[in-house]
Amino acid sequence: MKNEFILSPSILSADFAKLGDDVNEVLAAGCQWVHFDVMDNHYVPNLSFGPMICKALKDHGIEAPIDVHLMVEPVDDMIEQFAKAGADMITFHPEASKHLHRSLSIIQDHGCKVGLALNPGTPIEVLDAVLDMLDMVLVMSVNPGFGGQSFIPATLDKITRLREKLDATGRNIRISVDGGVNADNVREVADAGADTFVMGSAIFNAENRSARIAQIIANLS
Amino acid sequence: MKNEFILSPSILSADFAKLGDDVNEVLAAGCQWVHFDVMDNHYVPNLSFGPMICKALKDHGIEAPIDVHLMVEPVDDMIEQFAKAGADMITFHPEASKHLHRSLSIIQDHGCKVGLALNPGTPIEVLDAVLDMLDMVLVMSVNPGFGGQSFIPATLDKITRLREKLDATGRNIRISVDGGVNADNVREVADAGADTFVMGSAIFNAENRSARIAQIIANLS
Amino acid sequence: MKNEFILSPSILSADFAKLGDDVNEVLAAGCQWVHFDVMDNHYVPNLSFGPMICKALKDHGIEAPIDVHLMVEPVDDMIEQFAKAGADMITFHPEASKHLHRSLSIIQDHGCKVGLALNPGTPIEVLDAVLDMLDMVLVMSVNPGFGGQSFIPATLDKITRLREKLDATGRNIRISVDGGVNADNVREVADAGADTFVMGSAIFNAENRSARIAQIIANLS
Amino acid sequence: MKNEFILSPSILSADFAKLGDDVNEVLAAGCQWVHFDVMDNHYVPNLSFGPMICKALKDHGIEAPIDVHLMVEPVDDMIEQFAKAGADMITFHPEASKHLHRSLSIIQDHGCKVGLALNPGTPIEVLDAVLDMLDMVLVMSVNPGFGGQSFIPATLDKITRLREKLDATGRNIRISVDGGVNADNVREVADAGADTFVMGSAIFNAENRSARIAQIIANLS
Amino acid sequence: MKNEFILSPSILSADFAKLGDDVNEVLAAGCQWVHFDVMDNHYVPNLSFGPMICKALKDHGIEAPIDVHLMVEPVDDMIEQFAKAGADMITFHPEASKHLHRSLSIIQDHGCKVGLALNPGTPIEVLDAVLDMLDMVLVMSVNPGFGGQSFIPATLDKITRLREKLDATGRNIRISVDGGVNADNVREVADAGADTFVMGSAIFNAENRSARIAQIIANLS
Amino acid sequence: MKNEFILSPSILSADFAKLGDDVNEVLAAGCQWVHFDVMDNHYVPNLSFGPMICKALKDHGIEAPIDVHLMVEPVDDMIEQFAKAGADMITFHPEASKHLHRSLSIIQDHGCKVGLALNPGTPIEVLDAVLDMLDMVLVMSVNPGFGGQSFIPATLDKITRLREKLDATGRNIRISVDGGVNADNVREVADAGADTFVMGSAIFNAENRSARIAQIIANLS
Repeated sequence: MKNEFILSPSILSADFAKLGDDVNEVLAAGCQWVHFDVMDNHYVPNLSFGPMICKALKDHGIEAPIDVHLMVEPVDDMIEQFAKAGADMITFHPEASKHLHRSLSIIQDHGCKVGLALNPGTPIEVLDAVLDMLDMVLVMSVNPGFGGQSFIPATLDKITRLREKLDATGRNIRISVDGGVNADNVREVADAGADTFVMGSAIFNAENRSARIAQIIANLS
Repeated sequence: MKNEFILSPSILSADFAKLGDDVNEVLAAGCQWVHFDVMDNHYVPNLSFGPMICKALKDHGIEAPIDVHLMVEPVDDMIEQFAKAGADMITFHPEASKHLHRSLSIIQDHGCKVGLALNPGTPIEVLDAVLDMLDMVLVMSVNPGFGGQSFIPATLDKITRLREKLDATGRNIRISVDGGVNADNVREVADAGADTFVMGSAIFNAENRSARIAQIIANLS
Repeated sequence: MKNEFILSPSILSADFAKLGDDVNEVLAAGCQWVHFDVMDNHYVPNLSFGPMICKALKDHGIEAPIDVHLMVEPVDDMIEQFAKAGADMITFHPEASKHLHRSLSIIQDHGCKVGLALNPGTPIEVLDAVLDMLDMVLVMSVNPGFGGQSFIPATLDKITRLREKLDATGRNIRISVDGGVNADNVREVADAGADTFVMGSAIFNAENRSARIAQIIANLS
Repeated sequence: MKNEFILSPSILSADFAKLGDDVNEVLAAGCQWVHFDVMDNHYVPNLSFGPMICKALKDHGIEAPIDVHLMVEPVDDMIEQFAKAGADMITFHPEASKHLHRSLSIIQDHGCKVGLALNPGTPIEVLDAVLDMLDMVLVMSVNPGFGGQSFIPATLDKITRLREKLDATGRNIRISVDGGVNADNVREVADAGADTFVMGSAIFNAENRSARIAQIIANLS
Repeated sequence: MKNEFILSPSILSADFAKLGDDVNEVLAAGCQWVHFDVMDNHYVPNLSFGPMICKALKDHGIEAPIDVHLMVEPVDDMIEQFAKAGADMITFHPEASKHLHRSLSIIQDHGCKVGLALNPGTPIEVLDAVLDMLDMVLVMSVNPGFGGQSFIPATLDKITRLREKLDATGRNIRISVDGGVNADNVREVADAGADTFVMGSAIFNAENRSARIAQIIANLS
Repeated sequence: MKNEFILSPSILSADFAKLGDDVNEVLAAGCQWVHFDVMDNHYVPNLSFGPMICKALKDHGIEAPIDVHLMVEPVDDMIEQFAKAGADMITFHPEASKHLHRSLSIIQDHGCKVGLALNPGTPIEVLDAVLDMLDMVLVMSVNPGFGGQSFIPATLDKITRLREKLDATGRNIRISVDGGVNADNVREVADAGADTFVMGSAIFNAENRSARIAQIIANLS
């Protein structure tokens, strides 16, 4: 199966004093989604932001899909809150929910796309009992919530094996990759089988953001 | 002891798509501090935002003191992170720290002003062993982290008794009040003994924010 | 203030194979309330029963007030569930709620009577900030959730001091006592200032339950 | 391998005001076991009942095997308490024990039959290291502890794969199914490879319980 | 009331490669007790040692009382284990037990002396409901489990107020002090009302341990 | 692949009053490593000892590699502390870390050898995503932290399957076995594929430790 490539810029690297402008800028330059790195200082050792930011962007007129990655535990209540705040797809870590199938069902019940995230140390077999519920798998290529890490090379092989497993379902399930992805390695990541690319500093910290986005798109073509 | 009155607008009610502008607007209109309601979805059932917002406002050139109210548990690591992100005063709930004196020391060691917050159901005696470390006590006049509540009337008597206790130390300790404070009741709250007033929707949701702030200041004079 | 004496038999000692009959028997013999010892194996090291038992007794036609003592943590969700299942009064331990005032408010919002329970090691000052919300204080005269204990003598002095504190509010607040209360010591407990008496085995394990209840009532007169 | 079919009615749907009668009724009508849904409001968001109910039924003369499904965490202490209260088989969720092999050993040491429960989102591979200890696997066909769910269709395929895995051990291991099983689908569930059927409302809420049980048995023949 | 002065050297500062020798040395030089700082990396952020060390010293022939300070949570099981390993007195933090009176009872039931520890930020009123059970109060003059702290001066006033409260009971209750106590300040600490002195590095890190102990004793005379 | 056989005596069974002597004795008799069973009373129900013992042995001049088995949760901070205290290899349980890959990286970053421990009930597939990071796998042949258990026979088959999986990586990864290993069964354990043998009482409780160690080595040859 072949999906359109999607760029999902992580607002964690945007300027929160003028978030609306920053998001509009990268969407105008060709990004399709807006990625939320939601951290609660319990599942990961950082506190980022919650559903109110989602609502703020929607109220600001942002129409691009909001792609929420929950690095929180537990997840059920946060799923509800983000769904009500306007999220379009919600991804969480299976380790963070006592009732995996139940949490996935809550996402579905709110009409959102369903994702699960795999940590670098998590085997892809944890997905086996719920493959039929997934719209997306988020492969972490760094450990979530910790700074200063670079792309873990073993991720590429993991994506390849995951691509096989997902294609075997006969359903069209996206593979998103998050952590150390940039213009230089995005082609390689795509070749391994990913179709959705989360990038934070690679996009927002660029001197010329539009040029950087254009370059990434070019490298993917 | 008599302290200057301070307005500390809570950015929880600001527009997070253009936060820098909103904060500058209320500071220009006469507010002196910027109040942060930090929630981690564990101490309270909501997730708001973390230290990155503090850094963003400082980088944006905001020079007013940042008045951080931590509704998180545990607190020590968040204290460190907010201090490094530029916070000027840090307040937490004694119930949320296993080692109260230690947590207060961490705030002091970073050169920040030290505050403790009292929930509506918390007796003021929990402060007794650490009165000599406090620069401010935050009296909650609603339960933190839950929406749709109005000012709890018993708070006024609590402020009065607290004012007495704090003045008896011979040190100049502020009393801040948070929850349901507005132009109509701010005078009464001040008369009970408070000198610092946290307001969210009362300021940011006003049709004319400058007029509203002017009215609050007038009511306090 | 002087309240009518109330006997609140704890169904923990009843026969759960024919609970309806057992409860009707002790009510017919002069008991006024039905006491629920709700344990979740987390706040105390036993699991007893939950709201479904409350609903079952109500559906069975029991009209006496259901007096629920929550030995669970956290409490807010259990309060909701018991209120919906028909409880008339709900009591919990302040240590088991992060937001004491909030939990008490939930009981009030459901139209139930409000109680707080004091463990043998808990000072009565924990009530100070919420005295105006209470209808009842449950003084534990044994440690909740552990078997084989006898009435702790220091409880009598605690009841006396609590009676004074409660009367000083000018409001009519009941004192209930639970643990090792029986026909022999109930008079002494009443003299100390209690007006509500929880008894389990002292009532249900009596060879002649009606005679036992009559004797307790006689001793109180 | 082919086991006799067993009906294990869940007393969660019985009338707790006259539990002994209700249980005797369904046993007389052809059910062989008595199923306990034990919930602690921590592993699942409901509190049902604990070991005292088991002892009450045994004291009441119930001789049918008590089939305990623990939806609690942690499990070791509850296992001990239920074994002492007369349970005949004890099943728990592997996610709820830090030391899976140890918890299974405790069940064995008390002479009870050993079961593990699989949530809808749990892969059957979690059983792999302890297959030699199991007498029964309980396949959840709804998420435990949440109301209003219907039989999850993907369960049938899971039962089939599990039947294969269990038969490959050469040992006779039962497959029990719980959640949305009723007279209409019980045949299909049996055909997939299950031999033990937990039913709550399908049996206890029937207008004519004996007739309903007879119908279920007929559909299985 | 006036108790004999006791030195209780903390083995945390001894050489664990030859612990028996080190302990015998300081006992021979005039110390009367042996102090155990037990840390579990949960109540405090360090892991020190458990009951096996207590048993090892007893088996080695140490006859001096073992004075165990539990910086662990929960406490009940550790109390049991240390009592069985030969501890003579056991002290814990009230914040670390859900059932304070119960935990104190367990110490009593094993025939050990009973202590409670007060953190620098803990008001002395937490003792009020259990004063009749105490043999000793351990006043922390630094925050337990964190290194590099010096004696907190406000401790002296706390000891004085505590001495009054304890003497008012008419019972003979020791006050022990731990944290930054040394030959220079021990006299001042004793004058405030303490009678038991925990010292780690002040004793074990001395070049001449016997001389140091003699000096401390001299300063106390 | 074939590794040299290593004996790693567990100091849990040594005499902690003269630990340095005991360790030197077994090293002189032919043991190559020193095994630490670190328990925090949370991951397992016992408290043993922490990093200070590691530092004490290093300061005492012990040069043999210190082989640390962490039975604690969480693990990251303990890893740091043991690495700083001189540990040479650090092993933990995957269930005890929220971020498996991250915890393994911390061990690597400190230059220590990396191990993961498998409980008797843990399938070997949990290693799959991090096989490339491992220097050693510790197979538990009893449940960690509980006394009085004997070698679980199913362990032998598990070692055989694990040996295959590890050899398939083309990397030289040790298999260590812990629990009920002694002179009688060590040959069988080695034949299954293990090369590192943890023994506590089998070595330290022997009447003649040197003879016992010689016998074990002979049985392995």
